[in-house]
Amino acid sequence: MLVPQKGDCVLFTYGVNYEQVKAEAAGFNVELLKKSGELTEKLTPIVKNFKIHKAALDSIGHEFYRTISKSFRGLARLTLRNDMLWKLRQVKDEHEIKLMKKAGSITSAGMKAAYETIRPGRTEIEVAAEIEYAMRKENGWGSAFETIVASGVRSTYPHGGCADRKIREDDLVVVDIGSAYQHYASDMTRTIIAGAPNEKQKRIHEIVKNAHENAFRAVKAGAKGKDIDNAARRTIEDSGFGQYFVHGLGHGVGLDIHEPPSFSTSSKDLLAVGNVMTIEPGIYVPNFGGVRLEDTILVRKDEAEKLTEGTYELQAET
Amino acid sequence: MLVPQKGDCVLFTYGVNYEQVKAEAAGFNVELLKKSGELTEKLTPIVKNFKIHKAALDSIGHEFYRTISKSFRGLARLTLRNDMLWKLRQVKDEHEIKLMKKAGSITSAGMKAAYETIRPGRTEIEVAAEIEYAMRKENGWGSAFETIVASGVRSTYPHGGCADRKIREDDLVVVDIGSAYQHYASDMTRTIIAGAPNEKQKRIHEIVKNAHENAFRAVKAGAKGKDIDNAARRTIEDSGFGQYFVHGLGHGVGLDIHEPPSFSTSSKDLLAVGNVMTIEPGIYVPNFGGVRLEDTILVRKDEAEKLTEGTYELQAET
Repeated sequence: MLVPQKGDCVLFTYGVNYEQVKAEAAGFNVELLKKSGELTEKLTPIVKNFKIHKAALDSIGHEFYRTISKSFRGLARLTLRNDMLWKLRQVKDEHEIKLMKKAGSITSAGMKAAYETIRPGRTEIEVAAEIEYAMRKENGWGSAFETIVASGVRSTYPHGGCADRKIREDDLVVVDIGSAYQHYASDMTRTIIAGAPNEKQKRIHEIVKNAHENAFRAVKAGAKGKDIDNAARRTIEDSGFGQYFVHGLGHGVGLDIHEPPSFSTSSKDLLAVGNVMTIEPGIYVPNFGGVRLEDTILVRKDEAEKLTEGTYELQAET
Repeated sequence: MLVPQKGDCVLFTYGVNYEQVKAEAAGFNVELLKKSGELTEKLTPIVKNFKIHKAALDSIGHEFYRTISKSFRGLARLTLRNDMLWKLRQVKDEHEIKLMKKAGSITSAGMKAAYETIRPGRTEIEVAAEIEYAMRKENGWGSAFETIVASGVRSTYPHGGCADRKIREDDLVVVDIGSAYQHYASDMTRTIIAGAPNEKQKRIHEIVKNAHENAFRAVKAGAKGKDIDNAARRTIEDSGFGQYFVHGLGHGVGLDIHEPPSFSTSSKDLLAVGNVMTIEPGIYVPNFGGVRLEDTILVRKDEAEKLTEGTYELQAET
């Protein structure tokens, strides 16, 4: 999509998407590309006619960057400016928030199905089947990322996906799921045990829950991303599990499942009203198991609002 | 992952994936990255010590390319060589073919569920729910791409996804689905009608089916990708619908859902034993409807073998 400073935007598309783009991007100037390579042929005269001397590209592969850069030679100076689009996308408007609330409520229904399904002897994939089915039944647009049902030793893998591993009674099971709704994503994690949790499992779960709450309570417009991360990280460090919290506290969510801003030790972001973020502290003890608790939240002026909701209970329903 | 000409490969990973990588990439030299930016710090001394003077990167974003390129300055010349990895990945070995056959049989079970579920009044998303559930029940690792159940006017959108549109009795419904299995993808399309097809629908379906068969029969090792595309395209053109076949005939499938080689009018690829491809001719008539039929196939010496299988019937089961 070409976005000139003045005049209409032009959306270039190949034949395979032409009818859909015309229907769904109503009001846009849609240009059909008939063959591969035709984009630069069509773009260059426009850059010339509009007298564009500076052009910026958002996120793009190195090869394509070189192609565009070459075709603009002598006409316009090209720079990489992913930040421009990300800055716009970080703040969700009312319509986007409505869609993300719906995505959140669909995802919460999926988590309810997880609590109802996790039993000793069921496989991770069987649990994923029920979760995804429940989310579709709520009108979900499909999983926004690979469903994670990671049990036992696999609960220590934050990106563990699902396998055909059978869940055992004493397994920690990390369930990390998210439905899309009208292209907007949601993200939620609970950690569930099929049987009765032991003392160490309960303790780790309690620490992660406190970390989650402390971070959630620290959220407001103007807060620093690194401070929110720190609110959770300090809770975990003070309990002696700091080395096992092996990732950042959270990330922005929107059309993509991972977007700026971020909650991490190195984050330079400041929160603004309308940011949608995850809060997802975790403790992963090798050869023992992992616990993560996550909600998608909306940043408001003086507080955060949860877009995903449901029990934090450790034990599955029986 | 650094792959030197001599010596061991090194796999760099952040803490979030460290335990999983150590478990799943057994035999690899795994290096933990403790903070963002540490990759270049760790990579540069290795490039120096190994006396690497030429380095190639596979598919990568422009920003990351620049970072690596800068850190190698004065040490090694960096080039972009996506082709090296793609060349290796195009030919599947026996183990990969076994996994892709399983992915194909899971996907075929999903399509069976589509035939059993499509009824007047059901929404596209309700059909997707049953398809995805059936694929999970066969031990599927989740959808390899966004499930498409595109009905009525939406059947003319090859990448139409699903909406909460209610299927009507005379709608063409394009169902394009694929389950992953152990990271390998599969891809299959059928076009289904909830009621009794009319003459024009039957005729278009017949043409697409002939195009599919003609392309399938032309596949063998050594054949040109453009000739396979042409076998289908000629069939459709000779029937007067050439302008409505708005995409290439097919693509390679593997760890990614779209890989080289390709079946298209501009393909320069030659087929080899062990390529896994889609054959997916389609006719999309604006304001009427679309028909696509697709299987994932394996290239053998003198023929092709279908990895997805099932009826090509136009009418849903009643």
